[in-house]
Amino acid sequence: LVSKLPNVGTTIFTVMSKLATETGAINLSQGFPGFDCSPELVSLVEHYMRKGFNQYAPMTGVPALREALAQKTFTQYNVVYDPDTEITVTSGATEAIFAAITAVIRPNQTAGPDEVIVFEPAYDSYVPAIELNGGIPVFVTLTPPDYTIDWQVVREKITDRTRMILVNTPHNPTGHVWTADDMNQLADLVRDRDIWIVSDEVYEHILFDGRTHHSLMTHPVLQERTFIIGSFGKTFHITGWKIGYCLAPRELSAEFRKIHQYLTFSTVTPIQYALADYLKEPDHFRQLPDFYQRKRDLFLAGLAGSRFKIKPAEGSFFQTVSYADITDEPDYELAIRLTNEIGVASIPVSVFYNQKNDYKILRFCFAKDDAVLQEAAERLSKL
Amino acid sequence: LVSKLPNVGTTIFTVMSKLATETGAINLSQGFPGFDCSPELVSLVEHYMRKGFNQYAPMTGVPALREALAQKTFTQYNVVYDPDTEITVTSGATEAIFAAITAVIRPNQTAGPDEVIVFEPAYDSYVPAIELNGGIPVFVTLTPPDYTIDWQVVREKITDRTRMILVNTPHNPTGHVWTADDMNQLADLVRDRDIWIVSDEVYEHILFDGRTHHSLMTHPVLQERTFIIGSFGKTFHITGWKIGYCLAPRELSAEFRKIHQYLTFSTVTPIQYALADYLKEPDHFRQLPDFYQRKRDLFLAGLAGSRFKIKPAEGSFFQTVSYADITDEPDYELAIRLTNEIGVASIPVSVFYNQKNDYKILRFCFAKDDAVLQEAAERLSKL
Ligand SMILES: CSCCC(=O)C(=O)O
Ligand SMILES: CSCCC(=O)C(=O)O
Repeated sequence: LVSKLPNVGTTIFTVMSKLATETGAINLSQGFPGFDCSPELVSLVEHYMRKGFNQYAPMTGVPALREALAQKTFTQYNVVYDPDTEITVTSGATEAIFAAITAVIRPNQTAGPDEVIVFEPAYDSYVPAIELNGGIPVFVTLTPPDYTIDWQVVREKITDRTRMILVNTPHNPTGHVWTADDMNQLADLVRDRDIWIVSDEVYEHILFDGRTHHSLMTHPVLQERTFIIGSFGKTFHITGWKIGYCLAPRELSAEFRKIHQYLTFSTVTPIQYALADYLKEPDHFRQLPDFYQRKRDLFLAGLAGSRFKIKPAEGSFFQTVSYADITDEPDYELAIRLTNEIGVASIPVSVFYNQKNDYKILRFCFAKDDAVLQEAAERLSKL
Repeated sequence: LVSKLPNVGTTIFTVMSKLATETGAINLSQGFPGFDCSPELVSLVEHYMRKGFNQYAPMTGVPALREALAQKTFTQYNVVYDPDTEITVTSGATEAIFAAITAVIRPNQTAGPDEVIVFEPAYDSYVPAIELNGGIPVFVTLTPPDYTIDWQVVREKITDRTRMILVNTPHNPTGHVWTADDMNQLADLVRDRDIWIVSDEVYEHILFDGRTHHSLMTHPVLQERTFIIGSFGKTFHITGWKIGYCLAPRELSAEFRKIHQYLTFSTVTPIQYALADYLKEPDHFRQLPDFYQRKRDLFLAGLAGSRFKIKPAEGSFFQTVSYADITDEPDYELAIRLTNEIGVASIPVSVFYNQKNDYKILRFCFAKDDAVLQEAAERLSKL
């Protein structure tokens, strides 16, 4: 069997989480909360399981959840999506991203394969999803410490074959967030072109220092060509429940759903009903920025005496740090060594670059209990 | 946006279930149990949610569930799969089928696109999964009332480009099951060729009249090239929990996992732990043949006075009936009319044929409460 993804090995998340478990290290690598979801949410799932909501959900998601998402989206961003034709529930944001890319990207068009603009560092599922669909990723490289987008560079990479641009704000792994100007620049670029956008906004509720989330749906030129990808995993501390969704105009959603129905068909029924109820109380996510900002600040305070160079994350639950002043070890080796020797697992940011560019940056997930973050910072400060 | 699946509309399952709900008809269309799963299984999920098992499962599935599957497979079929490298948990059998096809099938090889042998009538996700990967489905048409495979015909359809054969036993929609001879014939055909097999065996526990399931894993020539696809939805009455799995030799599983990790990454954690425990008691599935045979027989007894021509299903929870002696309406129209007029929803089998061959056959799901089956049979007998 000849591999269709010859360069793919075990993901860094699996490697580092496994090493952390084996060594007993504090695991700040893979992005998941170290604390539990609300017991109320668990009770809701129990309620619907006991009531017998255990067979197939509708392919597009249970109506109550699609309506709750429409309501939330309208309240939050003042944008209307029709639950019947423009909202689809998926088995996590990963499935939604794969489905949106699959709905659009093709191999071997007359002019050659479709091209997709990917800002790197990029979440690890984007490129394989493009390649499995016969598309070609075209990278725009963003660099520390600011990771700002030079729109002139993006403009130069657009060709007749560009079919899609992948956006991710707040950004994993850097914690960088888009500005209103970024949206305007993107809108100028795509306005008269057949270019679609996938906007991965799974950290929409986690922005710091008074920043607001610039969802691409709030810009009309972008909204009409964008698959907005959301997730409950990061918002409600349930990364293991695997429920995400896609908001997109009717024509795009129709194509998205054709793919979704053959990828997974539908998503866990009792969890969908539970989330529909739980979403009705906006406090459940309104408190998130403060909750995570406190954790970020706690972690940063613990690192204040260290020799890392640090720019505080603007959003997400990841903090990157530069260790260039401390050692010139490759970031992958350092991440492994820190796990083994001082007992803190992280993610080397080079893995998110196509050419494994090593800017001497490590990513730490601070979605952990306070004591864990303090202990990790203390250990790291010894470096 | 130009559609990549221009011929795909709303699935027949969505159409008929929706119509059944709207008209209040008895829904024997989409294949899901009309009764609930065991309360014990619900309690297990609750237990693990309460214990805080709510974050990402390992990409390949939680070890306890993979081990329980290895144990079950060994006990049942006397075949060993290594839980670490040969068993992968997926978001339903649909995802597993898509992933296995994606792992193998490619467009535009030197000799042209890969070809996949598909026995039709075929479950509706097979062909889109092949086409989205740039492959070409090559159909072997099976016809009522026996749906037996003419292996000479299959042999003639094999070319240098044939890369895969899709098998489904017990068969949806016909209820036909494979014999040991079918396995030998297939083995002869693939023995010296680079052909892989996807074997959809989600009804492995539902065979009637003393028949035994011939899993392709039990034939060594087949086992080494087959992705065995299983599901808990049909076995434990939890179609809405969306947990399936793939058993395949190490090399095949490695490629399967590369796809799975970018399709959905992982599957609902507390449900996986619950199933690992629940699988330890084989009675939970050993009783299934009797349970469903009684339902099949009840439904058939109710139809005894009708003018349908019926060959009892050999397996699965579907019964097909021929109405050729009653009317020559197209099956799609009749299925709609029966839903509207006599209040029984079914699936027209023509939808499972590529050219929509209409042999005047309807499919009824008999995974319903006894009273529902009796009432449905009574209504149908009036035809
Ligand atoms: C799907 S595992 C990865 C979780 C995550 O989002 C991350 O660590 O970046
Ligand atoms: C995924 S909905 C279809 C369920 C089923 O297996 C069938 O009805 O054939």
